[in-house]
Amino acid sequence: MKKNKFNSVLIIGMGLIGSSISRAFKEKNISDKIYGLDSNIDVINKCNELNLLTQGETNINNFNKQFDLVIICTPISTYKNVFRDLNDYILEPTLITDVGSTKVSVIEDYKKIINNKNIKFLPAHPIAGLEKSGPEHGFSKLFENRYCIVTPIDTDSVTYDSVTNMWSSLGMQVEKMIPTKHDKVLAMTSHIPQLIAYSVVATATELETHLKNEVIKYSAAGFRDFTRLAGSDPIMWRDIYENNKEAVLEMLGRFTEDLSAFQKAIRNNDLEFLENKFKSSKEIRKLIEELGQAGSFDPTEKKKSS
Amino acid sequence: MKKNKFNSVLIIGMGLIGSSISRAFKEKNISDKIYGLDSNIDVINKCNELNLLTQGETNINNFNKQFDLVIICTPISTYKNVFRDLNDYILEPTLITDVGSTKVSVIEDYKKIINNKNIKFLPAHPIAGLEKSGPEHGFSKLFENRYCIVTPIDTDSVTYDSVTNMWSSLGMQVEKMIPTKHDKVLAMTSHIPQLIAYSVVATATELETHLKNEVIKYSAAGFRDFTRLAGSDPIMWRDIYENNKEAVLEMLGRFTEDLSAFQKAIRNNDLEFLENKFKSSKEIRKLIEELGQAGSFDPTEKKKSS
Repeated sequence: MKKNKFNSVLIIGMGLIGSSISRAFKEKNISDKIYGLDSNIDVINKCNELNLLTQGETNINNFNKQFDLVIICTPISTYKNVFRDLNDYILEPTLITDVGSTKVSVIEDYKKIINNKNIKFLPAHPIAGLEKSGPEHGFSKLFENRYCIVTPIDTDSVTYDSVTNMWSSLGMQVEKMIPTKHDKVLAMTSHIPQLIAYSVVATATELETHLKNEVIKYSAAGFRDFTRLAGSDPIMWRDIYENNKEAVLEMLGRFTEDLSAFQKAIRNNDLEFLENKFKSSKEIRKLIEELGQAGSFDPTEKKKSS
Repeated sequence: MKKNKFNSVLIIGMGLIGSSISRAFKEKNISDKIYGLDSNIDVINKCNELNLLTQGETNINNFNKQFDLVIICTPISTYKNVFRDLNDYILEPTLITDVGSTKVSVIEDYKKIINNKNIKFLPAHPIAGLEKSGPEHGFSKLFENRYCIVTPIDTDSVTYDSVTNMWSSLGMQVEKMIPTKHDKVLAMTSHIPQLIAYSVVATATELETHLKNEVIKYSAAGFRDFTRLAGSDPIMWRDIYENNKEAVLEMLGRFTEDLSAFQKAIRNNDLEFLENKFKSSKEIRKLIEELGQAGSFDPTEKKKSS
């Protein structure tokens, strides 16, 4: 892997992902200077407190300088405004990449707004995250051993190499994909599981109080895994469903068909159907473990609990 | 907590739960002798290899002795046979408890079969588990800080105290519940999440090959959490759906209504609905963390991965 080093990097959006990038950049000495932009002053104050940035601002015009690389880490609904600001602000050749969870909509926004010849954009999606949000929860190793999907909009190999080298240097394995395929794959691996998790939690929330209290109390039986997903940032997710509507609705249709088949098997005591389906699920799990993408779950509580 | 000690305990079913109990009993010196019964000779051999038992057998008649306490840790479909064997075998006053995930069906089986006056039964469900099965995956701390629900069938306080003390001595907090309520609460906290996890994995399995491979590869985005649940023992789960059919179908009905509401909101771009629902999910997660029932997830891979 070629080592690139940047003089100055701007991270837009200093939440979990943005702050993890700034930590990793510092640790791996990827950029001399790391600037952070976030519309929320509390987030910038937190970053200063944690010593994550060379300079943090809530308005891009306060920087009075240009950057080699800009990484967009804000919710997808902000991209139009972010692109407008960058289109106006950038005066020198600048690489841009992002971390957005949908790629078709991001590219549409980019094409509609950007006409600044100094801007070179490689859309990216590092498949890494946590259910926590905010700069205090970021950590430099978030990206290690994870995949980063890139969806190029042109054949500019200099941009491609520089940006993918940067993601690789965070420990990621970079894979190229066409944007529509990315959105379909992520609908299944991420957007549908998340929506279902939200939906299960909603069902539990609407139970009669006495039952609901007990569901929370005895959540260690499986429900808690769904609430872990459902603990993530609401705005980020709202934006994903707005911007990946077609693929999400398609996969959701497939899922509800499968769920109905299970429902019918339970109603009709079709135990053989259930057993066969359950057995083949184990195989899929094994494949994921073999690929080293399973993470690890510790069923015990961290010290804090008494 | 009163310390009870048993002279000899029989654990029927030496899988994940049974073997964890034998480990905990040994570690905490709860019984002088720990006997294990399992219809699978490989399981007994594994237990002997791991030095978990005083004696392991595949047939209860080989023991030639009586026990103070019997703990049933087999799938629910075996209970009828287990009760028949115990009804014939037991000649001296014996406490029985179990770990079955449904309680109404267990009590029905018990009442139909057992007429042996030496048997005193307190049905129990320790809410603790893992997605792994087999005696090699058990560990003594599995029960610590977890709840154990008991559903008494009579008012015999000696049985109640002895058995609940035993569960408490494994680090569990014991709670009494009526059987029908237990089955409803567990349908929501455990049986529905599990069924949905199976269903999501089934949907992914049936995707066209090129998409399926990518879903497995990029599973770290959320899908992997569902496959973790779906890695559990197929027979155990098949039996649960057979024996808690009514409560599962009721909760599943509620869930599909909620999921349809999300689907409609996505289709109609009702972003406010989505945002509000997502925000209230975070609250439920917080309550579970505060209760110390959240476990902890490590998104990085254990050393093995390169």
